Amino acid sequence: MNKNLTGNKEHFFAIIPAGGVGSRLWPLSRASAPKFLHDLTGSGQTLLQDTWDRLTPLAGDRMMVITGDIHAASVAKHLPLLNEANLILEPSPKDSTAAIALGAAVLYKRDPEVIVGSFAADHVIKDQEKFLSAIETSIDLAATGKLVTIGIVPSEASAAFGYIKKGAALDVSGGFEVAEFIEKPNIQKARGFVSSGKYLWNAGMFIAPAKLLLEVLAKTQPKLHAGVMELAAHWDTDLRTAKLESIWPGLEKIAVDYAIAEPAAEMGLVAVVPGDFEWHDVGDFAAIAELQSQGNSNNLAVLGSAKVLSDSSSGILVSDTNRLVALIGLEDIIVVDTPDALLVTTKDHAQRVKALVDALRQTGHSDLL
Amino acid sequence: MNKNLTGNKEHFFAIIPAGGVGSRLWPLSRASAPKFLHDLTGSGQTLLQDTWDRLTPLAGDRMMVITGDIHAASVAKHLPLLNEANLILEPSPKDSTAAIALGAAVLYKRDPEVIVGSFAADHVIKDQEKFLSAIETSIDLAATGKLVTIGIVPSEASAAFGYIKKGAALDVSGGFEVAEFIEKPNIQKARGFVSSGKYLWNAGMFIAPAKLLLEVLAKTQPKLHAGVMELAAHWDTDLRTAKLESIWPGLEKIAVDYAIAEPAAEMGLVAVVPGDFEWHDVGDFAAIAELQSQGNSNNLAVLGSAKVLSDSSSGILVSDTNRLVALIGLEDIIVVDTPDALLVTTKDHAQRVKALVDALRQTGHSDLL
Repeated sequence: MNKNLTGNKEHFFAIIPAGGVGSRLWPLSRASAPKFLHDLTGSGQTLLQDTWDRLTPLAGDRMMVITGDIHAASVAKHLPLLNEANLILEPSPKDSTAAIALGAAVLYKRDPEVIVGSFAADHVIKDQEKFLSAIETSIDLAATGKLVTIGIVPSEASAAFGYIKKGAALDVSGGFEVAEFIEKPNIQKARGFVSSGKYLWNAGMFIAPAKLLLEVLAKTQPKLHAGVMELAAHWDTDLRTAKLESIWPGLEKIAVDYAIAEPAAEMGLVAVVPGDFEWHDVGDFAAIAELQSQGNSNNLAVLGSAKVLSDSSSGILVSDTNRLVALIGLEDIIVVDTPDALLVTTKDHAQRVKALVDALRQTGHSDLL
Repeated sequence: MNKNLTGNKEHFFAIIPAGGVGSRLWPLSRASAPKFLHDLTGSGQTLLQDTWDRLTPLAGDRMMVITGDIHAASVAKHLPLLNEANLILEPSPKDSTAAIALGAAVLYKRDPEVIVGSFAADHVIKDQEKFLSAIETSIDLAATGKLVTIGIVPSEASAAFGYIKKGAALDVSGGFEVAEFIEKPNIQKARGFVSSGKYLWNAGMFIAPAKLLLEVLAKTQPKLHAGVMELAAHWDTDLRTAKLESIWPGLEKIAVDYAIAEPAAEMGLVAVVPGDFEWHDVGDFAAIAELQSQGNSNNLAVLGSAKVLSDSSSGILVSDTNRLVALIGLEDIIVVDTPDALLVTTKDHAQRVKALVDALRQTGHSDLL
């Protein structure tokens, strides 16, 4: 796929925030090697690389990665085409607003007409064509002065995601007003949402002129806005490090939904473009198992290079070692085998891994986190 | 406990056959480190050491160990009190008759009045006093010219063991005739056996004059008898190695039940002494779990030095590594964690481990056996 970038697309720049440990994926995912640095699909490359490849036909090398400074070497290794000028290293985690706003501010300083899109580094998306088509529509819509979210057409009633209620159709074909953002509902409510056909999953992807993002932030979080603008003003100078040291620690920790998306919706600035493609946030091992089994839940999915001997077992084995793993007569099992830690649970309890990680932190096992 | 060995007991000598891999205990038990070299009870020492300690009050250092030659160093390390003259190393496995008959023949050559007792190296016995008391009775009974088996008073109906039907009481108090040996029954039959009060578990322990054992063997397996007698004749000489090399490979592989115990019973030479003590052959991980949980089956039993984080799991974790093992919401689980192999199954499937080991052998993974 090779597109001529013309019109609004010329100004498009993809931001890939690569943060979050993915506690529910412990012991595979660690502070030192979080979710986005793992191959959770069996593609043979990391989720970060998948994200890069997926965006390449549209963005070329106009991509920025924002990540913790301890991941600098890993990111450089996995993304050899990433321009060093487009790698933002956070001295400490400050939640999504600081990261994305700093990225937007740096890009805005370089090109005041830039239209940024934010795409998590650790999602799984099948059907690249439909994905890119939704982004193209979103760019055209963003150019009219909108913050455009991609709303995923639900494949099932899920209580694991927030929802976006579609409003009236907009002039740009494929775009809709946003009637409402809804936090994760219970499963009954989710069923009603999905059967109505009016609700979409909020996958946290959005496209907007950097200028618009920063204007909204100036209103909702003026101190945070001032901080990232000052950082951006000195980013491409010798003062970057000094400014990071003085400003970054004081920045507000807040999610972009609360600091930008929802306030922008109240200001009537948000639109939604439905994306009818397969999307997974692979939040826990049960989700990986489902992704791998492709509907055949009697099988054992295997991720990694383990030697496996399975006798009538189903579920998922994730291996980060060369050990032989023998499984006998287990149903919906989850086994995660790493050099210094082993997890065994079942798909039903996959969400409880997070509590276990919290317990590890409290009992002084941070070396294993 | 310190006994004066007088009368028949002066001639008592314990033979400990330490053989068998324990396939159902893979991957803990391996060809290089079989069941008897592991601590399966949490006692802090191996089953072999437990066996030695259990017999010490009665036998002192009059104990002989018969094992594969690859275990020479391990046995010497675990049994520092074992006299080198009483360690018989088999060049290759030849089943129980060759091992026990060679031991008996060597001891008979040294003391024609010796009364030998054979006690597996990998059984678990609680209540040492009752155990020793049964052995003392058995020695007195053996001295009257009997092959005496210890029949364990069953604690439950089990289809996992052979049974011995008690006959009439004998003159030596505590001794009975053997009416019949019965192979492993089905569970219905086992229930009938146990409720009748006439049946005992065949634990494979027996006490007899070496002379008697060898006489029976001369009738049932004359070639095997001739072989062990010739080996014994040269055992304590410079010709031991040469004779082992020429004779051992040709010896018949046969279990002692078939070559000696059952034929002796037909000859009216066998008696039984009931042993009313707790006995386990810990044949699989489910048996170890039961042994460890001591009736509290909601608990997770842990063997080994693993760091464990368990959230409402029951079953058993056996660890041979220093890894952290996290278990969440598992019922009756079996997890066996070793440096090069991991087994996960449930108590219901514990017996299927043997089939898996067979599969490993057939698929060229003998390095892991």
